[in-house]
Amino acid sequence: MNDTKNIIYLDNNATTMVDKKVVEAMIPYFSNEFGNPSSIYELAHEAHDALENSREVIKEFFGAGDTKEIIFTSCGTESANAAIRGVIEANPTKRHIITTKVEHPCVLNTFKEFEEKGYRVDYLNVDENGELLIDELKTLVDDDTALVAIMAANNETGAIYPYEEAAEIVKSINPNTKVFIDAVQAAGKIKLDVKNTKVDLMGISGHKFHAPKGVGAMYIKKGTIIKPYMTGGHQERALRGGTENVPYIVGMAKAAELAMNALEFENKTVKELRDRLEEGILENVKNAKLNSRTKMRVPNTTNIGFEYIEGELILLHLDKLGICASSGSACTSGSLEPSHVLRAMKTPFTSLHGSIRFSLSRFTTKEEIDFVVQNMPLVIKKLAKISPFQKELSGILN
Amino acid sequence: MNDTKNIIYLDNNATTMVDKKVVEAMIPYFSNEFGNPSSIYELAHEAHDALENSREVIKEFFGAGDTKEIIFTSCGTESANAAIRGVIEANPTKRHIITTKVEHPCVLNTFKEFEEKGYRVDYLNVDENGELLIDELKTLVDDDTALVAIMAANNETGAIYPYEEAAEIVKSINPNTKVFIDAVQAAGKIKLDVKNTKVDLMGISGHKFHAPKGVGAMYIKKGTIIKPYMTGGHQERALRGGTENVPYIVGMAKAAELAMNALEFENKTVKELRDRLEEGILENVKNAKLNSRTKMRVPNTTNIGFEYIEGELILLHLDKLGICASSGSACTSGSLEPSHVLRAMKTPFTSLHGSIRFSLSRFTTKEEIDFVVQNMPLVIKKLAKISPFQKELSGILN
Repeated sequence: MNDTKNIIYLDNNATTMVDKKVVEAMIPYFSNEFGNPSSIYELAHEAHDALENSREVIKEFFGAGDTKEIIFTSCGTESANAAIRGVIEANPTKRHIITTKVEHPCVLNTFKEFEEKGYRVDYLNVDENGELLIDELKTLVDDDTALVAIMAANNETGAIYPYEEAAEIVKSINPNTKVFIDAVQAAGKIKLDVKNTKVDLMGISGHKFHAPKGVGAMYIKKGTIIKPYMTGGHQERALRGGTENVPYIVGMAKAAELAMNALEFENKTVKELRDRLEEGILENVKNAKLNSRTKMRVPNTTNIGFEYIEGELILLHLDKLGICASSGSACTSGSLEPSHVLRAMKTPFTSLHGSIRFSLSRFTTKEEIDFVVQNMPLVIKKLAKISPFQKELSGILN
Repeated sequence: MNDTKNIIYLDNNATTMVDKKVVEAMIPYFSNEFGNPSSIYELAHEAHDALENSREVIKEFFGAGDTKEIIFTSCGTESANAAIRGVIEANPTKRHIITTKVEHPCVLNTFKEFEEKGYRVDYLNVDENGELLIDELKTLVDDDTALVAIMAANNETGAIYPYEEAAEIVKSINPNTKVFIDAVQAAGKIKLDVKNTKVDLMGISGHKFHAPKGVGAMYIKKGTIIKPYMTGGHQERALRGGTENVPYIVGMAKAAELAMNALEFENKTVKELRDRLEEGILENVKNAKLNSRTKMRVPNTTNIGFEYIEGELILLHLDKLGICASSGSACTSGSLEPSHVLRAMKTPFTSLHGSIRFSLSRFTTKEEIDFVVQNMPLVIKKLAKISPFQKELSGILN
């Protein structure tokens, strides 16, 4: 809970509150240890050491084997662009790439660009429960496949995808095909252990686990060749030019450390609160249907459809009560199109437009959840009264 | 001066101390106003408003006409990559690009990549005083020229290049050629007034004017078409995906405001201190030669060669005295090659390896400058004693 505002923040998959301990860790690097890590004097050594200590922590967070495999970036979107473009451009003779229908726009829109350039692109399907059909890879991967990009967990439904198994399938068919995993929504919610997988590249974003917006990281397995995405100075082993954002990198390492320590809490206490919210709404709101039905889900996320009610209206009424939630990815907001993830799941049109994602964090309290559970039926009833679907909603109104 | 360390920081072209007022401006956006600016609830509106207010300030800082012309990025290197790659890829039939021999690695290395891909690349020369020979453009620009990239001020010598005039020449020959100006070292030191020039794109970096490392901005003149560099969500008018770094953007706007207010101070007081340092060293150190001789220079920078003395050794001895300076760009450090900028100026080999850049800021004091002026002769004398060039240095030693 935010301590200066009276809000209930259940949109942690969009962004998170920066942990106060993270802010404290960053502060010295703004106006005291402010040296450029590439400079040669003592002041710079301190910045350089902070950078390398942070790299060690982020290596552990990925479950990687070597700090040389970690590159700092400015966000999850940059990590995805760097990985996808870097692999494709390092393999100019290969013209086939594979992803899923339910990726984040930073992957989907990058793939679309290559599709427009004439690349052959395949998109894996999901089933109605939100499970990814990775067996489709068996007939799709071929000699010409440069890259397979799959997310570790879906931002809208929280579904965890079996990416380790997907990587095994890919490599068993074509060991030269590179596998990129967008782990932005998984990091801090499930344990990452990349060194024991066949994954070549993985991306994360600090602001999804209580570090600030504007910092991310990328894992690149030793020996993996990519074309550098952002060319400039020699920083990050010449794979990413630009003076390193020392304060945020230190902050992200602190946030990763806190997240690793809180993993059990996330998967027990936060999950219990999420289940309490989910069950409370499904029991008390007659037109509520669970969208994220797969058992393999990150512990903090639920996505519920409210039949015949407009999602944006629900959000506005929740906002009046100080409750922050969302109807999909913040990165696609502004568009009135229903979620591409829910459409890929063939969610019925009756609830497609009224689907709400609630995403909790370790700062969420039981009192907050109970307040939402109490108020959700009132909000839906109020909106049902003004809905054009009076007949369909008569069960709620009577 | 750094208030918790006893150091004299004269390497402000590498990076700057974040102004305390900038840190104060950012703090609320970490753990209070932490919403994702793309979300729809009240908390997000506050982040969104902060973003747009910052865009207004940065528009003024560039001297641009419209906030729609401002895109936030993660650094100067990203701005350069986005501008250069964005223009070249939006003009796929044109195969000629022009830059200068003295650009920052983020421009030079990006141009080299296109040269390796088969693009025709021309590099403008500088003269021995460090002045850019923009008249060379008259015979170089042709129908096939997609882009001309010129820096506004050089990071190593502080030389200001007549980029407005260069843009006029380019457009008079080919109005379709795009002009990108890397203004990273000019912003905050000279007034930018991009709307009254023929420049199409301009990049800046926050950490060169007392904002943190990891935030930058790009000006794109209305109507200029570029291919988006970082694809993802709809952020920044779909020209730059990724959740916006609200705290740093607010911080950069604050830093820009402070820099605009301090412009007169920079060009009077900081310049006087720089001149005091420069004259003090040239008068008191017998083997000192001024490298940055052009009259058009940013007020904070001087570059002085010390004949027959190794630059790295000078820096280490200065560091022992708590003085931070540099022998070139931090972005090329680690390499033992002498500066490409000083080589382009045909700096004699006798002082090429012993050239030191001092770059001041509005926090530099007269006492600090006097301390450096007093100690510089002692440092050089000490190093002269152990130099293999005893004969050449006899004037200093006796």
